[in-house]
Amino acid sequence: MKTPFDSLTVMTELVHPNDTNILGNLHGGRLLYWMDICSAIAATKHTHATVVTASVDNVSFQNPILLSDLVTIHAKVVRAFKTSMEVYIEVFAESMPSLTKIKTHDAFYTFVAIDKNNKPIEVEGVTPQTEQEQKLYDGALRRRQLRLILSGRMKVDDATELKALFTTH
Amino acid sequence: MKTPFDSLTVMTELVHPNDTNILGNLHGGRLLYWMDICSAIAATKHTHATVVTASVDNVSFQNPILLSDLVTIHAKVVRAFKTSMEVYIEVFAESMPSLTKIKTHDAFYTFVAIDKNNKPIEVEGVTPQTEQEQKLYDGALRRRQLRLILSGRMKVDDATELKALFTTH
Amino acid sequence: MKTPFDSLTVMTELVHPNDTNILGNLHGGRLLYWMDICSAIAATKHTHATVVTASVDNVSFQNPILLSDLVTIHAKVVRAFKTSMEVYIEVFAESMPSLTKIKTHDAFYTFVAIDKNNKPIEVEGVTPQTEQEQKLYDGALRRRQLRLILSGRMKVDDATELKALFTTH
Amino acid sequence: MKTPFDSLTVMTELVHPNDTNILGNLHGGRLLYWMDICSAIAATKHTHATVVTASVDNVSFQNPILLSDLVTIHAKVVRAFKTSMEVYIEVFAESMPSLTKIKTHDAFYTFVAIDKNNKPIEVEGVTPQTEQEQKLYDGALRRRQLRLILSGRMKVDDATELKALFTTH
Amino acid sequence: MKTPFDSLTVMTELVHPNDTNILGNLHGGRLLYWMDICSAIAATKHTHATVVTASVDNVSFQNPILLSDLVTIHAKVVRAFKTSMEVYIEVFAESMPSLTKIKTHDAFYTFVAIDKNNKPIEVEGVTPQTEQEQKLYDGALRRRQLRLILSGRMKVDDATELKALFTTH
Amino acid sequence: MKTPFDSLTVMTELVHPNDTNILGNLHGGRLLYWMDICSAIAATKHTHATVVTASVDNVSFQNPILLSDLVTIHAKVVRAFKTSMEVYIEVFAESMPSLTKIKTHDAFYTFVAIDKNNKPIEVEGVTPQTEQEQKLYDGALRRRQLRLILSGRMKVDDATELKALFTTH
Repeated sequence: MKTPFDSLTVMTELVHPNDTNILGNLHGGRLLYWMDICSAIAATKHTHATVVTASVDNVSFQNPILLSDLVTIHAKVVRAFKTSMEVYIEVFAESMPSLTKIKTHDAFYTFVAIDKNNKPIEVEGVTPQTEQEQKLYDGALRRRQLRLILSGRMKVDDATELKALFTTH
Repeated sequence: MKTPFDSLTVMTELVHPNDTNILGNLHGGRLLYWMDICSAIAATKHTHATVVTASVDNVSFQNPILLSDLVTIHAKVVRAFKTSMEVYIEVFAESMPSLTKIKTHDAFYTFVAIDKNNKPIEVEGVTPQTEQEQKLYDGALRRRQLRLILSGRMKVDDATELKALFTTH
Repeated sequence: MKTPFDSLTVMTELVHPNDTNILGNLHGGRLLYWMDICSAIAATKHTHATVVTASVDNVSFQNPILLSDLVTIHAKVVRAFKTSMEVYIEVFAESMPSLTKIKTHDAFYTFVAIDKNNKPIEVEGVTPQTEQEQKLYDGALRRRQLRLILSGRMKVDDATELKALFTTH
Repeated sequence: MKTPFDSLTVMTELVHPNDTNILGNLHGGRLLYWMDICSAIAATKHTHATVVTASVDNVSFQNPILLSDLVTIHAKVVRAFKTSMEVYIEVFAESMPSLTKIKTHDAFYTFVAIDKNNKPIEVEGVTPQTEQEQKLYDGALRRRQLRLILSGRMKVDDATELKALFTTH
Repeated sequence: MKTPFDSLTVMTELVHPNDTNILGNLHGGRLLYWMDICSAIAATKHTHATVVTASVDNVSFQNPILLSDLVTIHAKVVRAFKTSMEVYIEVFAESMPSLTKIKTHDAFYTFVAIDKNNKPIEVEGVTPQTEQEQKLYDGALRRRQLRLILSGRMKVDDATELKALFTTH
Repeated sequence: MKTPFDSLTVMTELVHPNDTNILGNLHGGRLLYWMDICSAIAATKHTHATVVTASVDNVSFQNPILLSDLVTIHAKVVRAFKTSMEVYIEVFAESMPSLTKIKTHDAFYTFVAIDKNNKPIEVEGVTPQTEQEQKLYDGALRRRQLRLILSGRMKVDDATELKALFTTH
């Protein structure tokens, strides 16, 4: 049995001048890069296999992160499907040296595990341990249906869980 | 009147060794970084204002891009809302030196235009010129409702256009 | 028949802090690096072969490019010789976010096309289409004679076209 | 009195993977970048002033430099004009660990010294000490005339020294 | 009361091609750079002040770390002196994707806390909680005397604890 | 016979924005990285073999180095043991453009020479030529004993030269 905690990966980065945009804040693009590395490591910890990024979903940027801030990224696998798995990522920023900490972002990245011939391989399931992990686990199915619809690989009528969200309200 | 073509931005990158993962393919994270820069320039061309990344949606990674490939990124603003705008991004890869070209990704990034006090400012509308641009323009409203629901800033019942997608099928 | 337009390559870069010198302006060296990549891609588009830089000529730096400026580089092959070709490069800078645009540099880089054994291979000719392209095509021969004289591979007396420039005035 | 030796600057770089092109050789562009930094330091040593790159002339690339090679760059000011000075640069490559050494390139970069308002300031003269330095000093005037003609700032008839080269043969 | 655990900092890095030497192993210098950043963050967590590296002691390199390995660095403050503090750093390497883990290095870095005028400020003490932390705490005094002797700021006779090590055997 | 001068290596670096910490000074970690490269080249010059970093000892950081400073690093092999050698490194900083020069650091790095199977190979001896080189040569033995004791590979009683330092005072 594998839990989200088993794949928990913590990454720490300082925001250097080259990581900032014209406003002196961290580039959105640099953060997307760091989140990709951190979540790929989490997916590797879950599978002990080579993984490749399959999709990035609904990252929203609210609080700017500033030059010299300390950025901490937490990533863990929250649900596995047949050959893919969803990783939940949280980003925190702390100003240096006072270390006042705020949560700035969260996001979901999806990875596929592959073998030496680049063929997808099966991924072991994840057993949620906390209430938050259970909620992330439950939502993962709806997010997956949404991804499949948006990429044209599932029909709306087949997205049972997602459809319920819209029709029962 | 502004068209998507007015903001069209073309960026060219070669895949260097440090841009690759353990498989020798372009990191998903590096591509997300390049797409952010390219689409931010497109949003700047549309607004002549400072812009910040607001969200990244449903980037899906299908074809791997290889070491030494030539990557071309096209970005253009496809719809403006009050203070934000959606940018459509297409990514092409060509192997060097044969230059066989494939489309590898597309994605939507959303940007907000801000003034010197970091306050959002109004963004001029976009007038689609081609059939593809009209389709992107129409879909933008549904994607926006989806973003607002997912970030908890809109109720499902208020997402009229998105809801129609699920209930009329 | 191949035209300069067939090899036209557009590259876009933002000036980041690490690209600047003590004055806060873009390093000459960084620009030389970007021009080399952009013109190598143009030469590859013309030949569909591997190319290596053979020479860089008379780049002059007049207008400084500033931190956060948007740099756009245009490169196209303007004339081919037996195994080499001359690429003409124009550099434009736009201040962000106003996008006021100025032309800051132009330069000529020469590339040689090579095969898998690093042996030079023949390059297809270029047919100029515009008045500017014709002028660049005509001047290319004189610039080539100058390069050969300066590197000691041609005698002054054999540089007929170049010599005419000095003796007929 | 200042000599070329007073401004001699030695720079050492190892060729890392990201410095190489598709062939595994050092990018021409990366070398141009290193030569710019090394020669700017030499020009600063000569003037104790801020300097900016004014032009790059006739760099020719003959011997490829390989991954892991040790690159040594020597730069020294060989002649000063009113507000500008010419720097002569030699590049050597040594394979690691055998350290077999070859000279791979030479080039001339021109710098202008400026004050705090970005206005050109006068540069002290250079007194050559060796036969090689005298030869470089003498050739500098012809190269300067060539640069001025090519950038349209001097008429062919006024380039006395350069013209002599073509008419007396 | 502050414990070593309060300042514990975990940093995760993947070894990219540019981080490797001619043998394809992680550069010693790159690891020294990562250890400096990780331990500076630990020292900032302990002091909530700006810190600067004061010394690096006796880092020994035994097991090579390979391209694509996952490097995890743990740093924590183990003893504070008047204005300085010693940070203990452990480095682990895991091969990807199997994640076989070995400890590859440990090291001590010393930092000084400073105020806005770059003057050293007092640092709060550290209370060890585990046997390992107590041992590190005790050894810190001897290591400090050694540093002071080696930099000529303490006489051998005054290094009571260190001297005992040599004379009682 | 080989002298320290035979392996003397000079490296020159400009401090760019990304090399600086929150105070605008050169990162300790970046300097450690540059010192590692420079001293590895010195060790390669002495052995004409592949070398790997074995240890870094007692680097102390006194004078901060600032953004835009010119950093010059001198490294030379001062003593060889059976398969390892000690490299002495001096670091100088000059402010640009005035070039006021101060010595900011010195340090000792130790390298091991290895063959193609990663096995240590014998290293030729070093013959000191100057008084400073003789002093560095003599001290090398004590520093080596200290390293061996600290890494648990030598007993205190066997460190004859080092012990004398403590017992004869």
